Amino acid sequence: MKGRKVNGWAARDSSGILSPYSFHLRKTGPEDVVFKVLYCGVDHTDLHQIRNEIHSTTYPLVPGHEVVGKVIEVGRDVKKFGVGDRVGVGCMVGSCGECARCKTNREQYCPNMVFTYNDIYKDGSFTQGGFSSAMVVHQNYVVNIPEQLAPEQAAPLLCAGVTAYSPLKQFIGSKKGIKAGILGLGGVGHMGVLIAKAMGHHVTVISSSNKKREEALTDLGADCFLVSSDSAEMKKFANSLDYILDTVPANHQLQDYIPLLDVEGKIFVVGAVPEPLQFSASGLILGRTSISGSFIGSIEETQEILDFWVEKGLKTMVEVVKMDYVNKAFERMEKNDVRYRFVVDVAGSNLE
Amino acid sequence: MKGRKVNGWAARDSSGILSPYSFHLRKTGPEDVVFKVLYCGVDHTDLHQIRNEIHSTTYPLVPGHEVVGKVIEVGRDVKKFGVGDRVGVGCMVGSCGECARCKTNREQYCPNMVFTYNDIYKDGSFTQGGFSSAMVVHQNYVVNIPEQLAPEQAAPLLCAGVTAYSPLKQFIGSKKGIKAGILGLGGVGHMGVLIAKAMGHHVTVISSSNKKREEALTDLGADCFLVSSDSAEMKKFANSLDYILDTVPANHQLQDYIPLLDVEGKIFVVGAVPEPLQFSASGLILGRTSISGSFIGSIEETQEILDFWVEKGLKTMVEVVKMDYVNKAFERMEKNDVRYRFVVDVAGSNLE
Repeated sequence: MKGRKVNGWAARDSSGILSPYSFHLRKTGPEDVVFKVLYCGVDHTDLHQIRNEIHSTTYPLVPGHEVVGKVIEVGRDVKKFGVGDRVGVGCMVGSCGECARCKTNREQYCPNMVFTYNDIYKDGSFTQGGFSSAMVVHQNYVVNIPEQLAPEQAAPLLCAGVTAYSPLKQFIGSKKGIKAGILGLGGVGHMGVLIAKAMGHHVTVISSSNKKREEALTDLGADCFLVSSDSAEMKKFANSLDYILDTVPANHQLQDYIPLLDVEGKIFVVGAVPEPLQFSASGLILGRTSISGSFIGSIEETQEILDFWVEKGLKTMVEVVKMDYVNKAFERMEKNDVRYRFVVDVAGSNLE
Repeated sequence: MKGRKVNGWAARDSSGILSPYSFHLRKTGPEDVVFKVLYCGVDHTDLHQIRNEIHSTTYPLVPGHEVVGKVIEVGRDVKKFGVGDRVGVGCMVGSCGECARCKTNREQYCPNMVFTYNDIYKDGSFTQGGFSSAMVVHQNYVVNIPEQLAPEQAAPLLCAGVTAYSPLKQFIGSKKGIKAGILGLGGVGHMGVLIAKAMGHHVTVISSSNKKREEALTDLGADCFLVSSDSAEMKKFANSLDYILDTVPANHQLQDYIPLLDVEGKIFVVGAVPEPLQFSASGLILGRTSISGSFIGSIEETQEILDFWVEKGLKTMVEVVKMDYVNKAFERMEKNDVRYRFVVDVAGSNLE
């Protein structure tokens, strides 16, 4: 059964060009929250999806999975949210709710997790993302945006932020002076620097060139900047790091970074590199190194990173654009020409 | 200064053929323990070293790093051992003693760790292994062989045993019914099965063929046997394991095994495969899987596995041979024709 009619921007084919598109939300269910979209972040995954480069994309597709909005209607059994509340939605809008993963607040690993767009909801309807005038989402997949947080600041936390936060939260409360390496300085990497610094870590940004040295040290407050192509510098940093947050979404020589780690050092891989990554077994063995993957974060962790942002007084670095700029924004993001996240002012844009 | 003259069996060149060789131990230092060698295990690393396939080997080389002996002399400051005690020595006979790794019982990761053979001791002397009538070792790198443990049973614990034990000991005391996978059924793999079973885990042996099914299930007491080339069976076991102990010392498709793991599953790599190992980033991310290396074990852990063996009443499966069979033993081990460890009866052999 159809619910309200909304205006979004959708890709129609694998060119990935977005243009206005009208569609219907599902009818509001008893546990559904309906909200007007205020802002929505722009992420690399959106680009891959609109171009049909990851899963098989169904068109028209409305992307957007860092969505901040204001509640305009709630289903009769919704207790956690009321009309007028500011809410957020990230990468997922459903999961089975019954499996061991769902029951232990790890629903992002549920085999029946439903993505925010380009997926099938449990009623059979096709999911569409946040580049739209409004959305309807089950209350269990909605988080609260703290009052103190501007909505355009909050948006990138819902995917990029929680992706960096989820592996790093294990260090909260650590008394040891933790030495962090952040590999790659894009949307997730810049979050990683801010989070690691806020946790009190000594942060080294590792980059393939010197280009981002100034901004890493000055704008983001990193302690050191290491150019990975400079082998003398790489040797100086040998055995110096407790972990590396590897945010690079393209192929790279993972094994070059293992020697930077102290014994029992950890590498967290969060970028879904299409090519296989390689490592040397003896390198891993002789340092007791571990390499682990981490996928976004749970709903609970998404709420945590929002609250953490407020508690620590952090500032996301975003470039706010209108919807008629979104195709250009994708183009610039692809060239890494953004510091560090585009956020679309959806409510302030003409969507028709 | 030279100490006592001993008879060992040494490789003279990269053919790796061992033959009798006389040499001198160092003079007994104040903290040294001198012991008559009783038994010594035969390991793949010995084979690589005598053939000059790992580090650059200095000849003549006396291999052997799973050494059980009886103390015949102690230095004046040795408190922990006395003449007549049964003792063991594994892969290392020295380390700096000063670094953070040494001070936290992780001396196997000390940058100045001294290997039992083919290495330079701190006095400048060349180290020689346990295929010898006697050895002299600093007391800090000597462990006590429990009375209840036969010496030929104890020998393989000093390297193969502790290599499997060190990564698995984190599960001791776990209340969850842990599901283990043991990949490869050689010297380390068979220890892995025995240790995991003794810890109460449900153990699946993963092998490339059906050849070892009977012995895995009957002789070693594994619960399941999974043939990795059987893709239908591999699918059935998807998401079923909490960890995989990967003991395969040759190149293999690591990423084929990742889907067997449940969320947050762990792979422990202990075989120093010469070729780079590969994995798919998205596979690792979507399961929050970790891959970590582990290198033998500390001296403390070496003592623990010996005590664990007695406490659990475990039985190492060995084939005891005399020294004049050792070249044949290497040949058979290379073809995987041993159940599961050759141990040389050094004291019962004619070494001259």
